[in-house]
Amino acid sequence: MSAPRYDVLGIGNAIVDVLARAEDDFLAQQQMHKGGMALIDEARAEQIYDAMGPAVEISGGSAANTIVGVAGFGARAAFIGKVKDDQLGRAFIHDIRAAGVSFETPPAFDGPSTARCYVLVTPDGERTMNTYLGAAQDLHPADVDADAVAAAKITYLEGYLWDPPHAKEAFRKAATIAHDAGRQVALTLSDAFCVGRYRAEFLDLIRTGTVDLVFANETELKSLYEASDFDAAVTALRADAKLAVVTRSEKGCVVVTKQGVEAVPAMPISKVVDATGAGDLFAAGFMFGLAQGRDHRTAARLGVMAAAEVIGHIGARPEVSLKALAQQSGLLS
Amino acid sequence: MSAPRYDVLGIGNAIVDVLARAEDDFLAQQQMHKGGMALIDEARAEQIYDAMGPAVEISGGSAANTIVGVAGFGARAAFIGKVKDDQLGRAFIHDIRAAGVSFETPPAFDGPSTARCYVLVTPDGERTMNTYLGAAQDLHPADVDADAVAAAKITYLEGYLWDPPHAKEAFRKAATIAHDAGRQVALTLSDAFCVGRYRAEFLDLIRTGTVDLVFANETELKSLYEASDFDAAVTALRADAKLAVVTRSEKGCVVVTKQGVEAVPAMPISKVVDATGAGDLFAAGFMFGLAQGRDHRTAARLGVMAAAEVIGHIGARPEVSLKALAQQSGLLS
Repeated sequence: MSAPRYDVLGIGNAIVDVLARAEDDFLAQQQMHKGGMALIDEARAEQIYDAMGPAVEISGGSAANTIVGVAGFGARAAFIGKVKDDQLGRAFIHDIRAAGVSFETPPAFDGPSTARCYVLVTPDGERTMNTYLGAAQDLHPADVDADAVAAAKITYLEGYLWDPPHAKEAFRKAATIAHDAGRQVALTLSDAFCVGRYRAEFLDLIRTGTVDLVFANETELKSLYEASDFDAAVTALRADAKLAVVTRSEKGCVVVTKQGVEAVPAMPISKVVDATGAGDLFAAGFMFGLAQGRDHRTAARLGVMAAAEVIGHIGARPEVSLKALAQQSGLLS
Repeated sequence: MSAPRYDVLGIGNAIVDVLARAEDDFLAQQQMHKGGMALIDEARAEQIYDAMGPAVEISGGSAANTIVGVAGFGARAAFIGKVKDDQLGRAFIHDIRAAGVSFETPPAFDGPSTARCYVLVTPDGERTMNTYLGAAQDLHPADVDADAVAAAKITYLEGYLWDPPHAKEAFRKAATIAHDAGRQVALTLSDAFCVGRYRAEFLDLIRTGTVDLVFANETELKSLYEASDFDAAVTALRADAKLAVVTRSEKGCVVVTKQGVEAVPAMPISKVVDATGAGDLFAAGFMFGLAQGRDHRTAARLGVMAAAEVIGHIGARPEVSLKALAQQSGLLS
């Protein structure tokens, strides 16, 4: 096993968020499921955009946000994802590279435009997402840079990769390369509806050890095991997974291992401005901690710290240096 | 004179802001003049973009921000400006219409892309701007909708219109139509360097009564009269202008008329997050007040209120209802 070039490499849908404030009434009129992520086609995308308020465009994508967070801790990070060579695609590439992330996936020069997620942020800070996958549909196994994956301590994959037609093949290819190189593979379950679409396959990935580390929030976990009881779902997860972390919003998170279940509290937050990216940034902090050889509790504390930063402002990417924040909190020297 | 359809109609460069945080060192390395606006070509735009940090895209443009502010007070507002039919141009059109502004200028289908302003926000909240005019270069007199201008109580024009080759002809056409219809014409001096480029022409517009109302900040006013003394510059302005307002950051503003000079204090602001748009939103509040038949002092208080809102967050357009804010402050019933 050669020396790693990256702490974490992420593979995910490369998406630009189109973020607007909205009232709960708007979600109801538009028949949107609050807090969820719906896949939409181009016609629906236009219809939503015409109806929604003034917006800002910010690079997003769940795994991409996570990888930007990893880089924000000062770690070595890389991302693989598909944009089109259009204005929004160029913005995505600029933003992720400017955050210090290595990004070399060639853009598409024809076909659908760069993926967009219409994010409606309600006054309570909750975000409701509508994703037009566009060019992200065309992520293929050929886009997976084998050398980069083999050189990353952790390869991080999002459950959302099950939506585009060929991305799950890319996922499986990456997992095989990583394990052959003696590296770790992590998966986020992404979204309770995503779990609903691919439950059997996600359970298979966990049970067969295709993934070594699982991130889920409480509703995703309950969806995975079709359980209404949190503790029962955690017990089931403990039997299936090598290592998992379940985030629980203001209740913090639990780290689940064969040895036991350890709870880590959330950080106090004065106001939830925009919950977009909270789970993504938790994963960033946790994996950064692992890659640095820190214990699970410290890794989880780095996760809740990063989540707290991103909840406090509009947008799913950190506005300040996570490294400096962690140093101020005494989590990094 | 028929009943007005609009309280304020604005004509300006239609620009999307590409906003990033930057340290003062970055401005120095890039030889940028802090707090100023530089016109850049496409090559320089690419060079700046490559060097700058992760960004967000938000619709901007000085006069466009003002007009969005006018609509935010619940008034009837319209805007004329030129974008290309590309992703950023479509975002500009969406955002201004979603803010409640009437916008009917046809986009360009070929030629340069939609105008972008690379805005670097330093830790003190100051913004340093670099504008690639792109499609905004192609605003022509034919784009001025004569019926709309004749139906607006106030037509608001930005000094920046002197930069594109044909926009000043559009400006003059609009001013003539407005006056022929018995309406008012307002001008913002835009920027001290813009004043430096077009001093004689701006003075001529003011002295000939082509504009009835002038907005300037302190440095723009000093540049206009090449004066180092503020009071001397105000005295000169009082001799030349029918009505003018000079904004002075934390010192508030002065309303200048033939009758005298009246100072109105600024609103206390806990933290300047991003000064982008402060002057634009001041003009929005002032013109909204005038259009409502309010006295100058009340109009100025509406202006400082709107400026304070936009200074408190990233981006140059209000995040909350200015109408509701004004009602809370007792400035509107």
